[in-house]
Amino acid sequence: MIRKDDTICAPATSPGGAIAIIRLSGAASIEICKRIFFPSDPVLNLLQQKGNTIIHGTIREGSSIIDEVLVAIFRSPHSYTGEDSVEISCHGSPYITSRIMKLLINEGALPARPGEFTMRAFFNGKMDLAQSEAVADLVASHTSAAHRVAINQMRGGFSKEILNLRSELLRFASLIELELDFGEEDVQFADRIQLRSIVSKARNMSEDLLSSFSLGNAIKNGIPVVITGKPNSGKSTLLNALLNEDRAIVSDVPGTTRDTIEDVIVINGVEYRFIDTAGLRDTSDVVENLGILRTREKIEKASVVLLIDDVLDEVTLINQRAEEFRKTKSSGGQQLILIINKTDLSDREQIEKFRKNIILKESESLLFISAKEKKGLGKLRSALSEVVDRKMLASDNPVITNMRHYDSLRKVSESLERVISGLDENIAEDLIAIDIRHAIHYLGEITGSVITSDEILENIFKNFCIGK
Amino acid sequence: MIRKDDTICAPATSPGGAIAIIRLSGAASIEICKRIFFPSDPVLNLLQQKGNTIIHGTIREGSSIIDEVLVAIFRSPHSYTGEDSVEISCHGSPYITSRIMKLLINEGALPARPGEFTMRAFFNGKMDLAQSEAVADLVASHTSAAHRVAINQMRGGFSKEILNLRSELLRFASLIELELDFGEEDVQFADRIQLRSIVSKARNMSEDLLSSFSLGNAIKNGIPVVITGKPNSGKSTLLNALLNEDRAIVSDVPGTTRDTIEDVIVINGVEYRFIDTAGLRDTSDVVENLGILRTREKIEKASVVLLIDDVLDEVTLINQRAEEFRKTKSSGGQQLILIINKTDLSDREQIEKFRKNIILKESESLLFISAKEKKGLGKLRSALSEVVDRKMLASDNPVITNMRHYDSLRKVSESLERVISGLDENIAEDLIAIDIRHAIHYLGEITGSVITSDEILENIFKNFCIGK
Repeated sequence: MIRKDDTICAPATSPGGAIAIIRLSGAASIEICKRIFFPSDPVLNLLQQKGNTIIHGTIREGSSIIDEVLVAIFRSPHSYTGEDSVEISCHGSPYITSRIMKLLINEGALPARPGEFTMRAFFNGKMDLAQSEAVADLVASHTSAAHRVAINQMRGGFSKEILNLRSELLRFASLIELELDFGEEDVQFADRIQLRSIVSKARNMSEDLLSSFSLGNAIKNGIPVVITGKPNSGKSTLLNALLNEDRAIVSDVPGTTRDTIEDVIVINGVEYRFIDTAGLRDTSDVVENLGILRTREKIEKASVVLLIDDVLDEVTLINQRAEEFRKTKSSGGQQLILIINKTDLSDREQIEKFRKNIILKESESLLFISAKEKKGLGKLRSALSEVVDRKMLASDNPVITNMRHYDSLRKVSESLERVISGLDENIAEDLIAIDIRHAIHYLGEITGSVITSDEILENIFKNFCIGK
Repeated sequence: MIRKDDTICAPATSPGGAIAIIRLSGAASIEICKRIFFPSDPVLNLLQQKGNTIIHGTIREGSSIIDEVLVAIFRSPHSYTGEDSVEISCHGSPYITSRIMKLLINEGALPARPGEFTMRAFFNGKMDLAQSEAVADLVASHTSAAHRVAINQMRGGFSKEILNLRSELLRFASLIELELDFGEEDVQFADRIQLRSIVSKARNMSEDLLSSFSLGNAIKNGIPVVITGKPNSGKSTLLNALLNEDRAIVSDVPGTTRDTIEDVIVINGVEYRFIDTAGLRDTSDVVENLGILRTREKIEKASVVLLIDDVLDEVTLINQRAEEFRKTKSSGGQQLILIINKTDLSDREQIEKFRKNIILKESESLLFISAKEKKGLGKLRSALSEVVDRKMLASDNPVITNMRHYDSLRKVSESLERVISGLDENIAEDLIAIDIRHAIHYLGEITGSVITSDEILENIFKNFCIGK
């Protein structure tokens, strides 16, 4: 049930700070606030107060003062939601916040649902659907890469791409539909060669966006890295060495809090999530083993696999294990980084021998480290960083991070594929027009330009926090 | 080291909400903000912006956008601190908050220390010291009683009382000092009878305030209630029954969070903290027992003691145990509530017999309950409520909640005591004048009217949260 006419209220800050903000939005916001708020300047009339101004006063329940507050007034359309809005800034006591919330509810405001303020901003044309979704990503972002992708999307970078694609297609759709209107006369308003070029350009664009999803998803949720290798090769020493250094960096940033830091490190603003595996067993019974099946599942989901051996191993055994691993892993694009640990127990000559004799496949890399003495970790970080296409991150190319967008774009791409083969096979205009319309529709789903069902909207906004 | 000239900054909200506020205060606030904030309206000049207004724009680091924000401008003296101030309202991501904090610090703002904003408000005469201290109490308050006491103090109720007392004494001090100036002439400007009456009124007022401390402290920190009694008398059943009902009430209040709920209940807006004891043992070896010493310590700190027996006990044994308890407890003002549990195993006749034969001392009360069937709990709540002097709570009489105020008032009271005996014994004016000046000094310590040392100030404000 989507409500558009009620006035809603919610705390917009977490409990526990020095100050707390309670947000009100809707036509009656200022009127409702007026009933519980008494300006320090008694001649001031809240109803006549200009937008984007702040008033000092007290919130009262009957004769008793609940708090001294600041009230910020926003006038439609110049507010986050586009509606008349009020922000009450009170002392950061959960007790006071709940007292004020109760007063507002008594005066007719409804407690806001998760994301309801942003949903209203969408309904009132303050932002499109993809931008709205970026708001939640932005609040959740805690690395520079995730932040950059989210703010670019919130500022409309991704939406612009989609809208350009859509308006090109719309133009051609109208021309083709015009041809259909002329029926038997066999005129061609839409240049077929130009159409084909536009459509294939559009399809390439959507394919590019689609292929950015695995990166986008990794940026948003962390890049999955599997550490595997024989027992006692130093997997946990390595992980601890990486985590400890990272922890120092993280705690250096004031105000940074993290849900869990145990198995996550941030390198160059990108998050890597380490996944522990049981490790690969002795080569003899690799294939039969059930544990290997589970390891394989984890490897399938990984972007990077760190396979750890140590200098105490024979080169032939290391090559054999790498080969076993290549068989174990799926055909997916997991990047293999072969790590030879415990260089502290070895000398330059032996390492040169390893380097010469270890066989690497294309795109694999080989690193020598001493997890114990924290040597070679910088190179490992660099190798992990290279997995994330720097060019993609450095440029402001839109990146998809959202499964919903991915699904819609897949349908766009399929429709455009049908348009192209339709053009190649010279099939009837009306069928081509239908596929173009489909592509246009699915593009519209992303930004919300086409009417989106309540259910889809509620699904999108339910993951927002209350007060957003 | 107290700094007054720098511009300080801090997040004023907890991480994790929909929005976050970063506060800046000091002469350079607006200038510093201008260097990282780009208004959506490009012709707008932040330096010329009026106070109490809000501007929309972006925070940027070089060419990259960190966030879309609202910036609220406050002009001295119309701000919390009395200085030029800025509040940046950004998306509630700790990552964004820390990025903006770094930018502000790079531009010359200093990270604020705990309570530094409120300390500046004190220095700039926006509030006195007692009011400043009430800000922290207000933020920490989570019951209506604690909230009422804190807001009354923050609004200056308590300070007014102190200032009145002080100005009366100041008037007399000047008159007496005038007499001293006339030296040998033996004139009396200060009417001794009137002085005596004023001083003894002042002393009574400070004694009243002093005696409100145990209540005030209990309101602020919870009223300590010891539950004791023989094993299996149903202590924990009773506690659970009380807690469970209370939990339902607490969770009914939106936004209420509590550090620990396990042993705390709120009745009529006052918090009660339950303290478990090992229980009183069999009467024979009461005095010798070490455990009893610990129980006694707990009882000494309690305001209320619930001594639990049950209907299966002999009346004489109950009387004996109550008598043992009275011997155990110190001479302190602990209120004894004698509880006879398990009325479900009894009948009206037997209970009447108990009621007739159990011996109560003055101010003690006797209750019959069934913790198992949750009967009689309402009466127990009422009995607990009566411990808090309702009249004191209902009126807006100032209540002391702060140990520092208590210490100062004790010195005030002692000085005034000396003035009174000085007057009685007709001692020299100059000695009386000194004691009046002492009293005036100690009163000034409470509100900060007399110069307070940096150390004391830092001690007061260090318990504040950052951003307050």
